Amino acid sequence: MKRDSYDIWARAQLDAVEAALDRFVPAQAPAGLGDAMRYGVLDGGKRLRPLLVLAAAEATGAADHPGGAEAAMRAACAVELIHAYSLIHDDMPCMDNDVLRRGKPTVHVRFGQAQAMLAGDAMQALAFEVLTPLDAEVPPALQARLVGLLARASGQDGMAGGQAIDLASVGSELDEQRLCDMHRRKTGALLQASVLMGAACASTGPGAWQALSDYGAALGLAFQVVDDILDVTQHSTTLGKTANKDADNNKPTYVSVLGLDAARRRAQSLQEQAHAALARSGLANAAWLSLLADKVVERDS
Amino acid sequence: MKRDSYDIWARAQLDAVEAALDRFVPAQAPAGLGDAMRYGVLDGGKRLRPLLVLAAAEATGAADHPGGAEAAMRAACAVELIHAYSLIHDDMPCMDNDVLRRGKPTVHVRFGQAQAMLAGDAMQALAFEVLTPLDAEVPPALQARLVGLLARASGQDGMAGGQAIDLASVGSELDEQRLCDMHRRKTGALLQASVLMGAACASTGPGAWQALSDYGAALGLAFQVVDDILDVTQHSTTLGKTANKDADNNKPTYVSVLGLDAARRRAQSLQEQAHAALARSGLANAAWLSLLADKVVERDS
Repeated sequence: MKRDSYDIWARAQLDAVEAALDRFVPAQAPAGLGDAMRYGVLDGGKRLRPLLVLAAAEATGAADHPGGAEAAMRAACAVELIHAYSLIHDDMPCMDNDVLRRGKPTVHVRFGQAQAMLAGDAMQALAFEVLTPLDAEVPPALQARLVGLLARASGQDGMAGGQAIDLASVGSELDEQRLCDMHRRKTGALLQASVLMGAACASTGPGAWQALSDYGAALGLAFQVVDDILDVTQHSTTLGKTANKDADNNKPTYVSVLGLDAARRRAQSLQEQAHAALARSGLANAAWLSLLADKVVERDS
Repeated sequence: MKRDSYDIWARAQLDAVEAALDRFVPAQAPAGLGDAMRYGVLDGGKRLRPLLVLAAAEATGAADHPGGAEAAMRAACAVELIHAYSLIHDDMPCMDNDVLRRGKPTVHVRFGQAQAMLAGDAMQALAFEVLTPLDAEVPPALQARLVGLLARASGQDGMAGGQAIDLASVGSELDEQRLCDMHRRKTGALLQASVLMGAACASTGPGAWQALSDYGAALGLAFQVVDDILDVTQHSTTLGKTANKDADNNKPTYVSVLGLDAARRRAQSLQEQAHAALARSGLANAAWLSLLADKVVERDS
């Protein structure tokens, strides 16, 4: 029953996100750049980050705040633009050299490496443009706060820093703590920022803010543990990307460090931590956040 | 006399920018990422964009506005981070494949392509982080405005869009109008945004704002015309980068489209347009902006 109404809610959110991204990412950008950007972000992906933004906005009552609903939709698109740009760059030959993503040729395979790099660069800039509309539909102080959260989660202390550790870790042994530090930055920071960007669109008090931050941290790590499990247990056709890639690339993963059974227990424990954090938040309306934590852990692709 | 006091002013500004960049770009970013970022942005470059920000801030009296001086210094660093990241990506093998920049090996030659791409990505994020300090030293509305100006100048309607046209133009003929459109985006947008970011740190009225926008547009185009002239008239040792690169790469330039003499006359005419715009601005304190326009046109590297 709850899952049915979640599905209805999620479908409506995803349709709105898709329409907004379609509007924000311009086909008319010059010399094919718009085509590469649109190919890289439209019509694909689970949109977990936008759903986290919008679920957190709903849990905290963002729609009752001036510009809150508009800000949350813009934040949902901005974080997806950052995620999508990172995949484009990550797939390039000098990084993971991947030719398949979401069941389609990767951006550099389709448009060439130079255009793929530029499309990623332009998508990062566009994320911050989306967060700073000129018509003041979103209060400027909220614009600045969302930019600050997203920039910090994307750069050297977040995603890019995690990718650098990832690069350096190929062929080396990481202990669990360093693996955890890598993934907190590489994947966790942006997932956690998604939750906090949603919460920033309302007047979230410090207690609920901290609880949502803990929820985002647990969910972010759970996401990566499950990713590592799926990489060894699923076929490429189910994943829509190349399976068994980490082992082939000699990269440390939760499965290689903990073993498969312990990795599964770790994912379950993080799921419980996410639920406990939501309970601590005192937010009455956190059902979708709760279900999203379950979906992250129980997914099969 | 004026040039002497300009030199004293510029030296002081550049020292402050260098110290701020040294503080903002963290050596401790993980797995060598910080080293690559610092190599790419510290201790090199003419710092034209920061000087434009700071000269425009001085011309408009930003120091008399709450947080104006701090905001201008942050804007100066942010725009240089964007410029420096674009050079790192532009030098990579899939783009211009350049091995020499500012007389040193390019970032990918020194640190590898993957680290160079990540360093550029992290520097773009850092630019927006620098513009959104958490301690409210800069009023949030000004933070949002600076982010909006920088993001729009960096993305598909600005620098990245211009680079895409540049990519597509190799080996093809561009008429003067399309060459101009390419450079307005590729180089001009960020130079113009530098001027406007400085002006945004004060309460600049619409008349002065438009005049400074015209000044920035003329200076931005002049910069590129002179770049094209220097590319064919100077040696690599003077330029600190590979000379005659555009002709070798079969790229259209102002020299190839207009001829050398007409390109020189165009640079002079744009210099006059920049001065005329400053006169229209009504700003009493625009001496450094005026000298910067002269320096852009009269430089030899």
